Amino acid sequence: MTTMTTPRDGSGPERSEQHAARAVSDAQRAEIDEQRAASFTTRRATVEALEAVLYEPLPVLDHGFVRVIDYMGDDAAVVQAARVSYGRGTKRQRDDQGLINYLMRNWHTSPFEMCEIKLHVKLPIFVARQWIRHRTANVNEYSARYSILDNEFYIPAPEHIAVQSATNRQGRGDVLTQEDARRVQEILRDDALRSYAHYEELLNEGPDGEPRDPEAPSVARELARMNLSLNFYTQWYWKTDLHNLMHFLRLRADAHAQYEIRAYADVMADILERWAPMTHRAFTNYRLGSAQISKQGMEAVRRMLAGEQVTAKDVGMSTGEWRELTALLAQE
Amino acid sequence: MTTMTTPRDGSGPERSEQHAARAVSDAQRAEIDEQRAASFTTRRATVEALEAVLYEPLPVLDHGFVRVIDYMGDDAAVVQAARVSYGRGTKRQRDDQGLINYLMRNWHTSPFEMCEIKLHVKLPIFVARQWIRHRTANVNEYSARYSILDNEFYIPAPEHIAVQSATNRQGRGDVLTQEDARRVQEILRDDALRSYAHYEELLNEGPDGEPRDPEAPSVARELARMNLSLNFYTQWYWKTDLHNLMHFLRLRADAHAQYEIRAYADVMADILERWAPMTHRAFTNYRLGSAQISKQGMEAVRRMLAGEQVTAKDVGMSTGEWRELTALLAQE
Amino acid sequence: MTTMTTPRDGSGPERSEQHAARAVSDAQRAEIDEQRAASFTTRRATVEALEAVLYEPLPVLDHGFVRVIDYMGDDAAVVQAARVSYGRGTKRQRDDQGLINYLMRNWHTSPFEMCEIKLHVKLPIFVARQWIRHRTANVNEYSARYSILDNEFYIPAPEHIAVQSATNRQGRGDVLTQEDARRVQEILRDDALRSYAHYEELLNEGPDGEPRDPEAPSVARELARMNLSLNFYTQWYWKTDLHNLMHFLRLRADAHAQYEIRAYADVMADILERWAPMTHRAFTNYRLGSAQISKQGMEAVRRMLAGEQVTAKDVGMSTGEWRELTALLAQE
Amino acid sequence: MTTMTTPRDGSGPERSEQHAARAVSDAQRAEIDEQRAASFTTRRATVEALEAVLYEPLPVLDHGFVRVIDYMGDDAAVVQAARVSYGRGTKRQRDDQGLINYLMRNWHTSPFEMCEIKLHVKLPIFVARQWIRHRTANVNEYSARYSILDNEFYIPAPEHIAVQSATNRQGRGDVLTQEDARRVQEILRDDALRSYAHYEELLNEGPDGEPRDPEAPSVARELARMNLSLNFYTQWYWKTDLHNLMHFLRLRADAHAQYEIRAYADVMADILERWAPMTHRAFTNYRLGSAQISKQGMEAVRRMLAGEQVTAKDVGMSTGEWRELTALLAQE
Repeated sequence: MTTMTTPRDGSGPERSEQHAARAVSDAQRAEIDEQRAASFTTRRATVEALEAVLYEPLPVLDHGFVRVIDYMGDDAAVVQAARVSYGRGTKRQRDDQGLINYLMRNWHTSPFEMCEIKLHVKLPIFVARQWIRHRTANVNEYSARYSILDNEFYIPAPEHIAVQSATNRQGRGDVLTQEDARRVQEILRDDALRSYAHYEELLNEGPDGEPRDPEAPSVARELARMNLSLNFYTQWYWKTDLHNLMHFLRLRADAHAQYEIRAYADVMADILERWAPMTHRAFTNYRLGSAQISKQGMEAVRRMLAGEQVTAKDVGMSTGEWRELTALLAQE
Repeated sequence: MTTMTTPRDGSGPERSEQHAARAVSDAQRAEIDEQRAASFTTRRATVEALEAVLYEPLPVLDHGFVRVIDYMGDDAAVVQAARVSYGRGTKRQRDDQGLINYLMRNWHTSPFEMCEIKLHVKLPIFVARQWIRHRTANVNEYSARYSILDNEFYIPAPEHIAVQSATNRQGRGDVLTQEDARRVQEILRDDALRSYAHYEELLNEGPDGEPRDPEAPSVARELARMNLSLNFYTQWYWKTDLHNLMHFLRLRADAHAQYEIRAYADVMADILERWAPMTHRAFTNYRLGSAQISKQGMEAVRRMLAGEQVTAKDVGMSTGEWRELTALLAQE
Repeated sequence: MTTMTTPRDGSGPERSEQHAARAVSDAQRAEIDEQRAASFTTRRATVEALEAVLYEPLPVLDHGFVRVIDYMGDDAAVVQAARVSYGRGTKRQRDDQGLINYLMRNWHTSPFEMCEIKLHVKLPIFVARQWIRHRTANVNEYSARYSILDNEFYIPAPEHIAVQSATNRQGRGDVLTQEDARRVQEILRDDALRSYAHYEELLNEGPDGEPRDPEAPSVARELARMNLSLNFYTQWYWKTDLHNLMHFLRLRADAHAQYEIRAYADVMADILERWAPMTHRAFTNYRLGSAQISKQGMEAVRRMLAGEQVTAKDVGMSTGEWRELTALLAQE
Repeated sequence: MTTMTTPRDGSGPERSEQHAARAVSDAQRAEIDEQRAASFTTRRATVEALEAVLYEPLPVLDHGFVRVIDYMGDDAAVVQAARVSYGRGTKRQRDDQGLINYLMRNWHTSPFEMCEIKLHVKLPIFVARQWIRHRTANVNEYSARYSILDNEFYIPAPEHIAVQSATNRQGRGDVLTQEDARRVQEILRDDALRSYAHYEELLNEGPDGEPRDPEAPSVARELARMNLSLNFYTQWYWKTDLHNLMHFLRLRADAHAQYEIRAYADVMADILERWAPMTHRAFTNYRLGSAQISKQGMEAVRRMLAGEQVTAKDVGMSTGEWRELTALLAQE
């Protein structure tokens, strides 16, 4: 099931073309190719590594994708804005990385807001519902009041079908047996197929736009769609700035995020690396890989470093917090 | 089916209690009654007409509701903020209405942002997906990763089941015959019941939290939920300011909005009237009931008033725009 | 005094170079020229008319400017987002204009949010304070805590020095006599020069960073700046989307806006026309040149068209509103 | 100069009345007293400790204040929203604190957005310019286009007049000698008095609204104001939610913030403690007093705890970062 995993290796066209066969139609592929073939001259900041994948559907889950449609700015544009300068970035690359590190470390977020990216995303509705909670972004979603949704829905791969976690009330625990997983897939698939068949029956619309059954009514699209389940795919254009992209990644590329949205976040982290490698480096060091330790936690650390044996009680921490702290300090 | 219509008459407890039996459980009703029984002393701006319905579930659709949980400010607070004054409002009520009219007419929106309202809303997921597009609001939604959704879904009443509109590509046309409508309801109900039964089978969780079938796995909640259809009810706390509430109402209490979200907007317009009657009056006059006429449309109106016979062509308007303009000018 | 007017004619380099001598230093001019000389290849939507003025300081007021630093998207990108399409725009330009008109007319604002523009602006502090009230934008301002402000301040040209309006409590009335205007300019100039001289005395910092007076303290920059007056120039990077740019223009290119911010808005309206001419056309027709008429105003218009003699009293309008309505209907 | 420090002791009326004599006029004091005397009955969440200071000007700097005008919600409302519950909070207070700690620790910010506070603030313009950068808030500022500003400006107390920091490019270093500080105060005071005198001359408006000099023009307010310096006081109504209030405090109650805005943040932190003591406790522990340690910093800590002697080079940290880390670990 390799096509279901996200392309962490940053692989390009081959993988995505293989997947694209399932995620985009031939007509869509032709439109994409036409866009990729065009070329313009610009005075704007341009990033080759990102241009390389522009418009290309980067596969996610079984039918989803992320396509970079447009972008504004790069690492040097962050520096340029921080300095309110007349030219671009600094003279030496090393200084740019240093300034970006400084901005990231000290939560000077506004220079990162000066870069912008626009994505075309195809994703299951239940993922879209989590995603949309990030409000500082612009969205245009495919309208099922206006158009008809395709018969495409998400079925989790067996390795992602797990039981409710015993320790984390909103997570997954052990993976199911192959047999049990198949049964889950069957239920999801049968119900999705039935609900789509009824959706089509309600719409009662043939390929030519004429009723398939001339005796039956063609129920309004805005009504018929309510019969579809939350694993059907929708799609949208989504645009955000570099700061808010990192905020999204910090929450959604996290181990506590649901696997299905994390799969999108992982692809987007790769996009970030292509787009703004210095910012990506600082983000990895000062956000993703960093730790926030409470006042009491810091007291514990200081006393440990002074050679004391410290307990949760000594510094007034709860059992849960203490467990988190010791795990953090023991981590490899 | 009177209980399915929204309480445009502003009726209170009787109607909502009748509905509440269907929208809230006995335990929830008891919690609500307890809250309504409490009383405090405050120096804050207080609105009696809104206090009267505080916490009360105002019924919408077949199982939904809107409950006002809290509010900040009133009409006088708008005036107070516009004047950056040390005291409250003006001396005379008539002056307050005049200033509010002026602010509304001239798009001075910031004073209206100084009042805030918090609602608890129970609504079908497909309505929630339209609603959430209004980003300038705060939201806490019931989490189906963490908790189990109830077996409650929306089935449109026969008088709201209609065919796809022939003229408006995202609207409804004629209502179906009783027989056809029943068939639609059946499809929706059967599919919803089946998807919920499978949801429960996947969850495999009894009332005591133990597996119902000890041999079967209890699939993670975050996975099982994807089998539910878009007409299932969810709920959230939603908080916004007076300006953004009116922006919501302008778009969603509009004839072009889907009936199901309009049903919520209608109840919220009644809440606005209770809360800030002067603002509601100005809103009705300068927003809801107003017309925006294009540059070309204004030219047409001026020439008509001068006694000319004007055609769309004369002022460079499209047929669609001209139709809208003449309808507007003929309206009763 | 031609250089003080805004380049409504869309004029380019010549005018701006003449002004640039006063608004940017030689070193800054060199940096700008270097940026303008660079050229890259991109697959992104590119707009030639905007590329032509990229990085160029477009003069505003006596020392200010607007520079376009970057942009994302164009008219076709609005259409692309509205359709959530795989390719770009539509086949025929005429369809693009039609769809853009439709979106503008019906307040479908989200597709316009899919384009973004970044400006470098040099402006008096009192203008910056009005400007910043538009919150849906990203800003990086030159920091007077960190750096030293230049000795540049705004002195209004005689033709813009006017008395307090008798009818509009927040506007200007008649222009002053030449003599009186000169006296106003003198007061403003003298006070600005003195406050800057004291600012420098407090800073006590020579060109080499060493104290000018070794005996005196070098007061912290964040303190010394408080002695400067509100007509000193500051500068910032400012980035917003096409929808919010138009919202800014609707409020700030309006006759009720203060002249000094309107001067910036006028230049930005020219930029909009270069960037997205179809959107600019729709904006002019459905926003800038349109009229919003209240419920009561519409009643009056309908009755007038039916041949009635209508008075303010007949439709319950105030004298002020009636004056506005009749002026609107009489306008050429 | 005790009245210039912020009331960290949470003291109430006595202190503020003493100050109020300088910050508010008698007429304003009467309006405030009238508001404080009124009392209403409500079903809403009510916080006694905050009601106690409602409307009261809490003194800041030499003429500024913060007044709490209104609020919505309390600690229990955070819990209520997190649970999307029908009633309020939990049964036991201890559980509420535990849940609030959990939400704070895990950056579940949306429940904190469910509480709202509205302040009336009087502050120097240069502070207002830093403050307004927090965009997620609602603001109504006193308009100097429409009204005339009072002759009130900020003069820093001698103990706050310091030289430019040698180590921190945007901070203060050592305090000036008494004599030097007096000289700075004199410069600031003289220039402010002169600029206000010229402001009045330009306005040429007597107490009765008639020109003081019938021969001279009354220059438009929107123009005359540009002669005032950045230490003049302005005032505004400012409203934000609990989450964004904490975000403001995290940045502005910080040692790196300019003293003058920190003085406001300190008073607002006291207000937070009165309003939502559990949230204030969690905020102190998990935000204000917490430390964020980078990936490399965590590696250093782990190796130190394992008994290693670690250097900056060993973990790839810059000198500056290493200094910050060791300071953090040594802190009392």
